Amino acid sequence: MKKLFFTPGPSALYFTAEEHIKQALKEQVPSISHRGKDFQKIFASAVENIKVLLNIPDDFHIFFTGSANEIWERLIENCVEHESFHLVNGAFSKRFHQVSHELGRNALALNSPHGTCASIEEILVPETSELIATTQNETSTGVMQPLQDMYTLRSRYPEKLLAVDTVSALPYADIDYTMVDSVYFSVQKGFGLPAGLGVWILNERCIEKANKLRSKGRSTGSYHSISSLLEKAGKNQTPETPNVLGMYLLSKVAADMIEKGITQIRKETEYKAAILYNMLEAHSLLDPFVKEKQHRSKTVIVAETKKTSSEIIGKVAETGMVIGTGYGSFKEDHIRIANFPTHSKEQMEMLVDFLEGLN
Amino acid sequence: MKKLFFTPGPSALYFTAEEHIKQALKEQVPSISHRGKDFQKIFASAVENIKVLLNIPDDFHIFFTGSANEIWERLIENCVEHESFHLVNGAFSKRFHQVSHELGRNALALNSPHGTCASIEEILVPETSELIATTQNETSTGVMQPLQDMYTLRSRYPEKLLAVDTVSALPYADIDYTMVDSVYFSVQKGFGLPAGLGVWILNERCIEKANKLRSKGRSTGSYHSISSLLEKAGKNQTPETPNVLGMYLLSKVAADMIEKGITQIRKETEYKAAILYNMLEAHSLLDPFVKEKQHRSKTVIVAETKKTSSEIIGKVAETGMVIGTGYGSFKEDHIRIANFPTHSKEQMEMLVDFLEGLN
Repeated sequence: MKKLFFTPGPSALYFTAEEHIKQALKEQVPSISHRGKDFQKIFASAVENIKVLLNIPDDFHIFFTGSANEIWERLIENCVEHESFHLVNGAFSKRFHQVSHELGRNALALNSPHGTCASIEEILVPETSELIATTQNETSTGVMQPLQDMYTLRSRYPEKLLAVDTVSALPYADIDYTMVDSVYFSVQKGFGLPAGLGVWILNERCIEKANKLRSKGRSTGSYHSISSLLEKAGKNQTPETPNVLGMYLLSKVAADMIEKGITQIRKETEYKAAILYNMLEAHSLLDPFVKEKQHRSKTVIVAETKKTSSEIIGKVAETGMVIGTGYGSFKEDHIRIANFPTHSKEQMEMLVDFLEGLN
Repeated sequence: MKKLFFTPGPSALYFTAEEHIKQALKEQVPSISHRGKDFQKIFASAVENIKVLLNIPDDFHIFFTGSANEIWERLIENCVEHESFHLVNGAFSKRFHQVSHELGRNALALNSPHGTCASIEEILVPETSELIATTQNETSTGVMQPLQDMYTLRSRYPEKLLAVDTVSALPYADIDYTMVDSVYFSVQKGFGLPAGLGVWILNERCIEKANKLRSKGRSTGSYHSISSLLEKAGKNQTPETPNVLGMYLLSKVAADMIEKGITQIRKETEYKAAILYNMLEAHSLLDPFVKEKQHRSKTVIVAETKKTSSEIIGKVAETGMVIGTGYGSFKEDHIRIANFPTHSKEQMEMLVDFLEGLN
């Protein structure tokens, strides 16, 4: 029997993904040339469908990379000459901060205790910082920074670039793209696709910054520099032979989500999050890790456990359902549950019912 | 009806690949955690099978990237402080040279006219160059630099690192890995897999060089620096969530090739190359582009065409077979034919027979 994955990424495949993979094999998608018309159609369709689904303005660009980790690196290389400023509220925002340091930049951080995020009042970004790196949804601890905070930062620091990590938040997060400069995700989370593809959404201000760095003689990388990605994207192509199958699947699943309706997807996500948090709050063994309700992620729900997480995960596993361990040092103290579009209301109710009965 | 792809990459899927994809879906490979035991088994099995198939010594490391383009960048970032030296004999070796330049290194090149490669006598590498970048099989023009040339360079310049681009040559190329430092390929060519995965084979000398750069305070990149890749590979993991499905397929197809026997694969490759070149030499419309027989690729066969290539490609397409155009400025003047392990003798004979009849 197949397992039902509620792990926070890789997660369950989107329920239509397997059929699209089989169709791609029938159409011989893996064998087509990445310099030919069939590929250009896939590229254009992936870009178009993501833009429609997420309501991204026309003047934004969409680039494809190998992972979201890669986008961290490309953002620093192309958009930061000297200094970046990072809101660090978990393992992944911390890793982005480290990437900037490893690339020789002055990487500043405002660290928040685990399970919390910085309040907008305490965020003071130095004049010298060129980029504010925020994490909308911290996959490691289930902390969600409200989008309104990002917009406030953008208004307060209009000359800086604002990057938003939405790796495990999209397509749920309803972002006003006119108030941010760069947003990115990877496909093995909310889009329910096989890993190996990062999606980088960015505006002209990022392009201008990269051009400025180049005009100063700074290296912005090579095949995946913004200028190289932009030049090829203008022809619906990528610099390298990319993960063509992944791009095909993304375009198809985004189309399925458009058909279902993003409003419906968001409503269902909120319903499923609500029943999860209600169950956790009433539970004798489980507690929401994030105490501040407005900072609780809707898509990655993390609970502290009074027994070891492996005991709880083991019991859940007997039913064929798979939930995640805590991240890093929280491995045995937390469970993590993904609430992605592929997880139906019925599936989530089944998980909630089962967890409710544990004691 | 399915087409039969003889294009030089992406090419036809290896004949077992589709079944492995279906099996991966049954086993829910796209949903497993990249930090769990099931993934570690896939990683270890991919590394083990590639090492056995290609006869790679135990003390070499194998890393996974998004593409071979990425490996160009990582090689320069990690193994070149000031200067690289490139044997340029086509579009891809030229692009690697450009990558080094874009990353701010002093990138030197010995350029050979299209369709030729440098003779070993004319290759003089300056004392200041740290890395010699060679291309064993230039996918754009079908020129093959003999492996003996690489070994001679290694003996002549023992203190320099020697990198060999085998993107479209493996698994055919029978390399003596003790005479090279770094070899790399991408899976959508000879291994017949969906694109989106680069494989980087390297020895301790590359690791030492990267450590030396780091100890000098040079950035060697971030998540895909050699030190980051090495640390994770020690645990059979990758720094990022990788193309797990691609790695699974690579391990399976490499196992199939081991079972078939690499000697058999090489013999068949040589037989198919021989009937192709014999046909081209006798043809009134087609001529091998590479005149020097010992420099003719066995895996990417390129022919000059007396009619436009699109006319010939169009006639071939009527039979359901797909061959490649010329690369870049040679688009209309060349055809390119992949001769990879998935192409059976019977399929190649069918293509040769059809081309023979064209006039």
